[in-house]
Amino acid sequence: MAIEVFWGSGSPFAWRVLLALEYKRLPYVSHLLQFSKQEHKSPQMLALNPRGRVPVLKDGDYVCFESLAILCYLDLKYPQPPLFGRTPEEAGTIMRVVCEYQAYIEPHVTRIASSVFDGHIDLTGDEITAAMHAVASEARTIEGRLAKSDWLVGESCSAVDLVIFPGIQLLRRALEKPQAAELSARFMPVEVNYPALGRWLARVAALPGYPRTYPPHWRG
Amino acid sequence: MAIEVFWGSGSPFAWRVLLALEYKRLPYVSHLLQFSKQEHKSPQMLALNPRGRVPVLKDGDYVCFESLAILCYLDLKYPQPPLFGRTPEEAGTIMRVVCEYQAYIEPHVTRIASSVFDGHIDLTGDEITAAMHAVASEARTIEGRLAKSDWLVGESCSAVDLVIFPGIQLLRRALEKPQAAELSARFMPVEVNYPALGRWLARVAALPGYPRTYPPHWRG
Repeated sequence: MAIEVFWGSGSPFAWRVLLALEYKRLPYVSHLLQFSKQEHKSPQMLALNPRGRVPVLKDGDYVCFESLAILCYLDLKYPQPPLFGRTPEEAGTIMRVVCEYQAYIEPHVTRIASSVFDGHIDLTGDEITAAMHAVASEARTIEGRLAKSDWLVGESCSAVDLVIFPGIQLLRRALEKPQAAELSARFMPVEVNYPALGRWLARVAALPGYPRTYPPHWRG
Repeated sequence: MAIEVFWGSGSPFAWRVLLALEYKRLPYVSHLLQFSKQEHKSPQMLALNPRGRVPVLKDGDYVCFESLAILCYLDLKYPQPPLFGRTPEEAGTIMRVVCEYQAYIEPHVTRIASSVFDGHIDLTGDEITAAMHAVASEARTIEGRLAKSDWLVGESCSAVDLVIFPGIQLLRRALEKPQAAELSARFMPVEVNYPALGRWLARVAALPGYPRTYPPHWRG
């Protein structure tokens, strides 16, 4: 039976899984759910994931959710090419940088993106300014890493590239909005302020199958 | 060369690593750092982890930090007994429940514990009440899981037991404080309100080597 993936356009978590499936060149059946119609909260979806969140992966009878868990599953089930390196040391470092992203960057990216898209919070307020400052500081660390290597850890694309990439894209999309002009001044354009990061974004976007992963509602 | 672990008393993240080392019966050199003396921010520690956080694991020349990454590394380097199951499906589900804990429970536990120990925030305020409500709701899900099985996923102790256990212990310790009496009423005592969870806590605490992992400053 084919792998099935349930996802929604613009979810950075779902995007990771599509990138992983394409990277491993695994055939899959794509189920694009409409958030606006609450399709991710349908009885069928709640039967797969009681939290009503995407992505959800179904591989035969096995169901998995939470994007990082899906990446771990796929890498053990379909090991080539590897997402978590070729040695315990590489795997540890890849997972370390994933954990650092989740702990120290992702909450700020989420806060900034929500604020810009929801339009609820003052984008010049202290909380968002602090979040942007934290992201810019972490981006400098990533810039240093990518100035020395094409990929975030090791010599190949790995899970950490696929975990972080959608978050950076979401951040860029938020910061491109006119209302975020002031907030974005020190970060955007990425290619100018963080040139190695900009080249890495282009490198991930050049991976085979990438166009199939791109959020449909971001097009045009 | 022996494994070295750098940790601090009461850090739930460090506790996970000590539990994993004991579970795998790996010999290790323990470096207990004093948070009160800022030993985790010393130049030597910052050279290992620039964030100045514990736990840090050193295995020969290899250095790893972020507790979940250390668990992944240890499991690949020293596979028996496994922490992430014996099949891709088990690994995916173990990691899924780890991710769910980190996303939906841990931030609330951290907020409650910080509020109780720091004494800064009104413990009857809406924010802490909401956090306690969320934790109690998630604990009911865990209770349901443990009513059917001795361990959180599968038939054996796994990474998810070692990840969640220290968080629950930290929460209990916070809720035992007199100032948290009102907040804790629906959760404590755990053994009464969540009997299967209570038995699981005792089960983890009966693992070989457990006393060596117990936070020294919690004793007596």
